[in-house]
Amino acid sequence: MKCRKCKAVAAVALPSHNTAFCPDCYPVFVRSQVERAIHRHKMIAPGDRVLVAVSGGKDSLALTLLLHELGHDVHGLHVDLDIPNSSTDARAACEGFFAKLGLPLTVIELRREGLAIPLVKSRIKRPICSVCGKLKRYYFNKFALENDYPVLATGHNLDDEVSRLFANTIRWDHAYLSDQGPLLPAESGFARKIKPMYRLTEFEIANFSFLRGIDHVIAGCPYSGKASFPIYKGLWSGLEERMPGAKVQFYENFLREGRPVFAAWSDQQGQLPTPCTECGYPTSAERCGVCRIKAMVADDEK
Amino acid sequence: MKCRKCKAVAAVALPSHNTAFCPDCYPVFVRSQVERAIHRHKMIAPGDRVLVAVSGGKDSLALTLLLHELGHDVHGLHVDLDIPNSSTDARAACEGFFAKLGLPLTVIELRREGLAIPLVKSRIKRPICSVCGKLKRYYFNKFALENDYPVLATGHNLDDEVSRLFANTIRWDHAYLSDQGPLLPAESGFARKIKPMYRLTEFEIANFSFLRGIDHVIAGCPYSGKASFPIYKGLWSGLEERMPGAKVQFYENFLREGRPVFAAWSDQQGQLPTPCTECGYPTSAERCGVCRIKAMVADDEK
Repeated sequence: MKCRKCKAVAAVALPSHNTAFCPDCYPVFVRSQVERAIHRHKMIAPGDRVLVAVSGGKDSLALTLLLHELGHDVHGLHVDLDIPNSSTDARAACEGFFAKLGLPLTVIELRREGLAIPLVKSRIKRPICSVCGKLKRYYFNKFALENDYPVLATGHNLDDEVSRLFANTIRWDHAYLSDQGPLLPAESGFARKIKPMYRLTEFEIANFSFLRGIDHVIAGCPYSGKASFPIYKGLWSGLEERMPGAKVQFYENFLREGRPVFAAWSDQQGQLPTPCTECGYPTSAERCGVCRIKAMVADDEK
Repeated sequence: MKCRKCKAVAAVALPSHNTAFCPDCYPVFVRSQVERAIHRHKMIAPGDRVLVAVSGGKDSLALTLLLHELGHDVHGLHVDLDIPNSSTDARAACEGFFAKLGLPLTVIELRREGLAIPLVKSRIKRPICSVCGKLKRYYFNKFALENDYPVLATGHNLDDEVSRLFANTIRWDHAYLSDQGPLLPAESGFARKIKPMYRLTEFEIANFSFLRGIDHVIAGCPYSGKASFPIYKGLWSGLEERMPGAKVQFYENFLREGRPVFAAWSDQQGQLPTPCTECGYPTSAERCGVCRIKAMVADDEK
């Protein structure tokens, strides 16, 4: 197979795009996919300072590099979860990568908030993955708003988005189906959220990271054993193999045909979030999920 | 493993129900599932004559037997597609089965309508499976209305329903998502349609057919090679194995949470079918799909 751009020997085949690229042209293809996503969904306005949520994995570090190379003003934000070994490695990967690029990085330590994940896990019976996700989203959003970043970017890829959409579709969950997407506009209490890599698969980003020599953490989180997402990801990869393009079609069709239907329904129900009585950040209950988690962890410590 | 009802040695294990049955109690379980579906969705009113669409396969013949044993007034309707070998076997299986039970059966021959499937296939470029499905649905509905059957029952099982729902969901197809379900109420030009076996999997019905000695055709249609449904069925069976109950949850959640959202959306769009200018049966175009197929086949014959 030959490279679509320069006709050299191809190194990466992309059946869903019915094409292939050599090691030099492939990163250009990846960058153009991100550029198109940003342009098409009007993700970043000229002059916007972009806060990038980074975990130390390949996706968020690749996103940092791509946004930087596309000329955006990038600031990294990492949440140190305080999980033995795993968090030390993740933080070191972020710090090393940002130092190399000469870009600013802020680290929020959950330990200082009284919310180190091993402690939270021992005190709260809910699955830790969903609690941890809630905490990270909360602190990313809080930091963006308090420090005047108009936009918060995350490294979610097509596989993440498709498996989340599939999980929400199996439950036909109105709340999620009405606002899942690569762009969530800013609203009261929420920064604008963007996912510029939503059209790239895990495989495509892994190739990019390898070819560009990105030094990222590889080991998964030691707590994520029982999650159902890996099952959905496997299922969709199997489908993609037999029907190239299935993932991106499912997701793009949803954005065009599915989400508007659920959004219209949710508008009629008219449930808007209100400020948490404790921290002031938006919630659908009286006190937000993070303040309730904090209270539960603190109660148990007495 | 032991039978849930009588504690004898079990012959059929049902992980999605977390139970197992012996050969005597299993058919009782299957019948109760069908009875519950009929009751819950008010599928059949007392005294309703039920027209059952039969293909000669295990599902529709099992449905005939179950409805008969539940005391309903059953009349069979078979559409002879005129496919060499395949259609002869299918028709013979239906005729033999209905004769054995002493139940009435009507056969509609597509050949007499000028619509033998091999002829249609040679004249029309669209995938033959969808054309054939359209023709069968048309003649089932027409016969039910012309002969005053208030209700038309089909043998669709959970795997059929889930793969169809999944196919419609991948496309986020409003028209289908707003009215797919085990009961479609009668409306102008349409008989009430019911799927009393929608909660039973293919595997569960195959076991029932085997244990009750139902003599059905096994060979698939020689034309159905390229259909995508088998891929979806395989995918969902893989998921069900890892998450027992996934199929029925996806489908029941859709009926409860998904369909009403799409139905409300479609009501707002307000597209109602109108009578076909040629045959008078409902269509969203001026002339219905079947009349257009007839014209295309006839044009080519000139």
